[in-house]
Amino acid sequence: MGSTFGRYLTVTTFGESHGAAMGVIVDGVPAGIDLDPTVIQRDLDRRRPGTSAYVSPRGETDQAEILSGIASGRTLGSPIAILVRNRDVRSGDYDRIRELFRPGHADYTYFKKYGLPPQPGGGRASGRETVGRVAAGAIARALLLPLGVSIQAYTLAVGPLRAARVDRAFAEKDPLRCVDPDLAGEMAALVGRVRDDGDSIGGMVEVAADGVPAGWGDPVFHKLDAALGMAVLSIGAVKGVEFGDGFALAAMRGSEANDPLSEHGFVSNRAGGILGGISNGQPIVMRLAVKPTSSIGRPQQTIDLQGRPRTIETHGRHDPCLCPRIGPVAEAMTALVLADALLEQKAHQGAKP
Amino acid sequence: MGSTFGRYLTVTTFGESHGAAMGVIVDGVPAGIDLDPTVIQRDLDRRRPGTSAYVSPRGETDQAEILSGIASGRTLGSPIAILVRNRDVRSGDYDRIRELFRPGHADYTYFKKYGLPPQPGGGRASGRETVGRVAAGAIARALLLPLGVSIQAYTLAVGPLRAARVDRAFAEKDPLRCVDPDLAGEMAALVGRVRDDGDSIGGMVEVAADGVPAGWGDPVFHKLDAALGMAVLSIGAVKGVEFGDGFALAAMRGSEANDPLSEHGFVSNRAGGILGGISNGQPIVMRLAVKPTSSIGRPQQTIDLQGRPRTIETHGRHDPCLCPRIGPVAEAMTALVLADALLEQKAHQGAKP
Amino acid sequence: MGSTFGRYLTVTTFGESHGAAMGVIVDGVPAGIDLDPTVIQRDLDRRRPGTSAYVSPRGETDQAEILSGIASGRTLGSPIAILVRNRDVRSGDYDRIRELFRPGHADYTYFKKYGLPPQPGGGRASGRETVGRVAAGAIARALLLPLGVSIQAYTLAVGPLRAARVDRAFAEKDPLRCVDPDLAGEMAALVGRVRDDGDSIGGMVEVAADGVPAGWGDPVFHKLDAALGMAVLSIGAVKGVEFGDGFALAAMRGSEANDPLSEHGFVSNRAGGILGGISNGQPIVMRLAVKPTSSIGRPQQTIDLQGRPRTIETHGRHDPCLCPRIGPVAEAMTALVLADALLEQKAHQGAKP
Amino acid sequence: MGSTFGRYLTVTTFGESHGAAMGVIVDGVPAGIDLDPTVIQRDLDRRRPGTSAYVSPRGETDQAEILSGIASGRTLGSPIAILVRNRDVRSGDYDRIRELFRPGHADYTYFKKYGLPPQPGGGRASGRETVGRVAAGAIARALLLPLGVSIQAYTLAVGPLRAARVDRAFAEKDPLRCVDPDLAGEMAALVGRVRDDGDSIGGMVEVAADGVPAGWGDPVFHKLDAALGMAVLSIGAVKGVEFGDGFALAAMRGSEANDPLSEHGFVSNRAGGILGGISNGQPIVMRLAVKPTSSIGRPQQTIDLQGRPRTIETHGRHDPCLCPRIGPVAEAMTALVLADALLEQKAHQGAKP
Repeated sequence: MGSTFGRYLTVTTFGESHGAAMGVIVDGVPAGIDLDPTVIQRDLDRRRPGTSAYVSPRGETDQAEILSGIASGRTLGSPIAILVRNRDVRSGDYDRIRELFRPGHADYTYFKKYGLPPQPGGGRASGRETVGRVAAGAIARALLLPLGVSIQAYTLAVGPLRAARVDRAFAEKDPLRCVDPDLAGEMAALVGRVRDDGDSIGGMVEVAADGVPAGWGDPVFHKLDAALGMAVLSIGAVKGVEFGDGFALAAMRGSEANDPLSEHGFVSNRAGGILGGISNGQPIVMRLAVKPTSSIGRPQQTIDLQGRPRTIETHGRHDPCLCPRIGPVAEAMTALVLADALLEQKAHQGAKP
Repeated sequence: MGSTFGRYLTVTTFGESHGAAMGVIVDGVPAGIDLDPTVIQRDLDRRRPGTSAYVSPRGETDQAEILSGIASGRTLGSPIAILVRNRDVRSGDYDRIRELFRPGHADYTYFKKYGLPPQPGGGRASGRETVGRVAAGAIARALLLPLGVSIQAYTLAVGPLRAARVDRAFAEKDPLRCVDPDLAGEMAALVGRVRDDGDSIGGMVEVAADGVPAGWGDPVFHKLDAALGMAVLSIGAVKGVEFGDGFALAAMRGSEANDPLSEHGFVSNRAGGILGGISNGQPIVMRLAVKPTSSIGRPQQTIDLQGRPRTIETHGRHDPCLCPRIGPVAEAMTALVLADALLEQKAHQGAKP
Repeated sequence: MGSTFGRYLTVTTFGESHGAAMGVIVDGVPAGIDLDPTVIQRDLDRRRPGTSAYVSPRGETDQAEILSGIASGRTLGSPIAILVRNRDVRSGDYDRIRELFRPGHADYTYFKKYGLPPQPGGGRASGRETVGRVAAGAIARALLLPLGVSIQAYTLAVGPLRAARVDRAFAEKDPLRCVDPDLAGEMAALVGRVRDDGDSIGGMVEVAADGVPAGWGDPVFHKLDAALGMAVLSIGAVKGVEFGDGFALAAMRGSEANDPLSEHGFVSNRAGGILGGISNGQPIVMRLAVKPTSSIGRPQQTIDLQGRPRTIETHGRHDPCLCPRIGPVAEAMTALVLADALLEQKAHQGAKP
Repeated sequence: MGSTFGRYLTVTTFGESHGAAMGVIVDGVPAGIDLDPTVIQRDLDRRRPGTSAYVSPRGETDQAEILSGIASGRTLGSPIAILVRNRDVRSGDYDRIRELFRPGHADYTYFKKYGLPPQPGGGRASGRETVGRVAAGAIARALLLPLGVSIQAYTLAVGPLRAARVDRAFAEKDPLRCVDPDLAGEMAALVGRVRDDGDSIGGMVEVAADGVPAGWGDPVFHKLDAALGMAVLSIGAVKGVEFGDGFALAAMRGSEANDPLSEHGFVSNRAGGILGGISNGQPIVMRLAVKPTSSIGRPQQTIDLQGRPRTIETHGRHDPCLCPRIGPVAEAMTALVLADALLEQKAHQGAKP
């Protein structure tokens, strides 16, 4: 239940961190779409661990195998299933801490919900679950691209450092996906320092979707911002989301906050491209609050399964800052919501088939 | 589609601002629950316009009629339908502006999506739609209360004024639901000034849910925070949401951000009561960014249906600040998500019926 | 949950037999469709009790009030809510038997599920629940009609009498909706005799949907026949359904059963218009097994709430044969499934919006 | 969309007949359930082709690989993914007929819906899709078995031969799953004759579910019989379904058809164990009309993709009668519906968690 997302384009993921495989089924993709399977691998490579000094060195190649739904480079209209085997599973790293709840992790809450002790690598709660999301997102993107919709996520802030300018092309090449070329060096130095301290650090990821036509989104409960918000809040470590000027709007007056309209369109974009839950043709802009990685090398106070106080030090493979890893996942979730909105719009626009 | 919410407890609302009636169907309520119908009316009265100098003077009595699902004060297990007639419908207020898109409103996007000119009072996009949500929320609360779960929303900030202390009992009596007794006077003065300027102002609403046991929430895509986030982002004017320390976590290190565990439970609550998408037994705390009311009395730049530049002044009945109105709606949406999580937990906890 | 039907066009009904009102919300109707509200009333009038000597004389006028979703004769794209008040509620008829489970009725199973004693008039299990279905079906029909899709249900058999020829226009005028003019007199006499005996009788209803284009239906679990089957099996008293030659196919060989194709299309229609769960362009034909009305005037063996053996005689207002009542409901359910399939096809056909 | 089934226990299948693999994800299984993975393989072996002279000799071993959701023989509460590779893929058999629509098959309707020429082996419309259903059904059974619920399907009729007595243990050993030991020889001879003729033959499968407690089923649209009906009508070749006395009830009077109640329970079971869409504690009995296998070796009249008349002879590997193959699939679908009803009942029974 919790592992299915979407209403018109439906995504179901499976897999635990140290199980046999991760994977995803995408249902609802129209038939006859040209879908180059390499776009899936390319997006998986973008989210893959071990790609820079600032992300976890877990040695996964994350090779996607397409099991169904595509033949000869075209979609069949049937569910697309994608499989990624787990290879670099060193449960040893985790064995010693299976009796302890890691602070900041889902160990305690899964134990309370399912009655199971902490699973190796976090089990289902691991960031590896996002492999399936990213593979599905690549398919969603392939539906959106011919319509001129493109999506990019980039690191806007790490700790106290916040970008002063936005150079999206730069972000694609920067190992932290930092969007401000002037800040990238300082940001990298900070993350390196935090890593060397055995600590981690939070940050902010911004997602921009360009080219979304006006009129997408299903108002009331499934407003486009509500759906996007749910999508990104379902990514581990994301603890907040805002659209357009977001929390800054709380301090404004209506006469400043409203985006005026001229014969050339909207004069500003404080609303972040969405009004009344429907896209207004402006770029959709949202920002995500990313908490520091929960796994740190420093001793922390916790309890064991019997509730006894203990000290824990986590020595696995961890990202000192999650922002560069979350970017591709946030793009994928955004693409899934927008492709869903596209199909919704097709379904309900006029009554002729 | 967009008008249905929830998976185990399903809520479907209907009604346009200037149509015959607003209403809601709540399906999935277990049979045999004592449900005093007056709790529905009480919650409706809390959200009702015309209750103070700081909210819209629209003269609705919002009398709820229960059409089904309850007999002799007990639930039947069948859908509970609740009807609220629209009485104070002065379309005249709106007639003069039906050719213009009101800035900040959904007029433009509904036009792009549905091909319809701006509807009187905003039509389906009106805040009146929340009548059904609040009625449904009262039912959800009645399911949660016997389990010790209580929910309260209050105004944390208006414009630049932010509460320094939290006195929840005070908030219930304050016309702006301001949670800080020391700030209430200043806040009221600010809102009055803004209203007299023909302007509006934004703010922040905080929602706290106490007594939620550890283990609620359906991880992966329907994480408890993702579901709550969607729920509150589906309220008009809410442009951001954060959990626990939220955006402030972006500037922290892991060693500060993780909530340690002791034999007495969690030592802090930076996570806002949710870990890995599942409640951890701490209070659930979220904050909403509320934009200034879009309708203002000042002239604004816009276009008409033909795309010609025009100036608009809106002289209807409007709230200068939406925070006190949004509080009860945010409580209702929170209650609906939590009652849904309760039923989810019952469904999937162990295999015995 | 159980009270919501459909995936793209969503219908939610509410109401108990002796409660305040019956009603329905239809969500997902495209905006801007011309929808003459009188078609809703006309369909309700077709299913209404008290319209002939062969149906229950309960005196309901079943006046539909449209509460939302339609303005000036056109759909708004928002949920259409329709209300029908219950007027002729004579609970007295039922009071005396509230301690007994009526054989053939849902009294016993609702008691086991919900822990509630038999509700007056069957409560939610009453045939009056279909008021909402029929109103919703009228809207679905209005979506289908411009595409040339028409649906008709008629009585094919009552007890041992089975139609030898099909004259659909005749069925519309016959009080039993008998489709065979040569049989109508005999059928009416049989039903009259059964009624005078204080008994009831079963029959068969056939539903034909003409003009459905090839390509509708969502294969695998939501095959068009599976969806139609669920739709009609959800009507009380329907205990079986078959498509095309149905159960007769069980006795055939493949060389007889397969419908050959010629350059003019299918040569026969043993499949009933559906292959692999998708419409093939032929008329869709299904037949429903309708059990005799459970309420009869004769003494029957039953038990009371305490499990003690008792004898029951039901003296309410009952239809001696349900076929003429079920026809319009079966049409409505068929229309809802087909309109849903239309929207599904629109959503997933090609990727351009 | 069409590839997902269930509301509380959700099943999503994937795979095409001649693609890389078939598979299924089952979500919603409670955590901590003992689940011996060999029960999945055992059920797959029961449905496997090549197991007798009367079923298709396609040489699949159908080895299930469990990818997630189970560890150390216990469920984790996360989605259970099961993979079955396609091995014996002889597309050659099908190449020659890819330009022709096979009568009785979904080739024509898939072409109309998706714009794709007939896929090898039927693609997604192949009976191989049921591999995932059967694997999922084994899991559902494992949830039901501790509650005393058991399900069995058997061949009741083939062509004109109908069982006169029911010996369920015998059916398990008979290659055609014939339930009448006295008829089994004659039935086998008939099927052999039909096969030697290059033809196929229809039949009837009966499904019995014993031990279902009273009170399961979600009335109105998701009645237990409606859900079961949809489940089995979604199996290819099933063209009708009836419950209890089914179509025979159409010829009865109410005084015969109603099942009386005594202090020992129901006196008869004409209703097939379901009243008002809810189980009544009696065995649930339904019968399926199975059409003859569409693939036959005899020449048939058809058209090619361009609409030109052609003659087709199908020389693949086909079952002369589908009844023994459909039995295990019908059991699986029944188990899925009942396990879903079990979870529904748990979710909505009383309000305490």
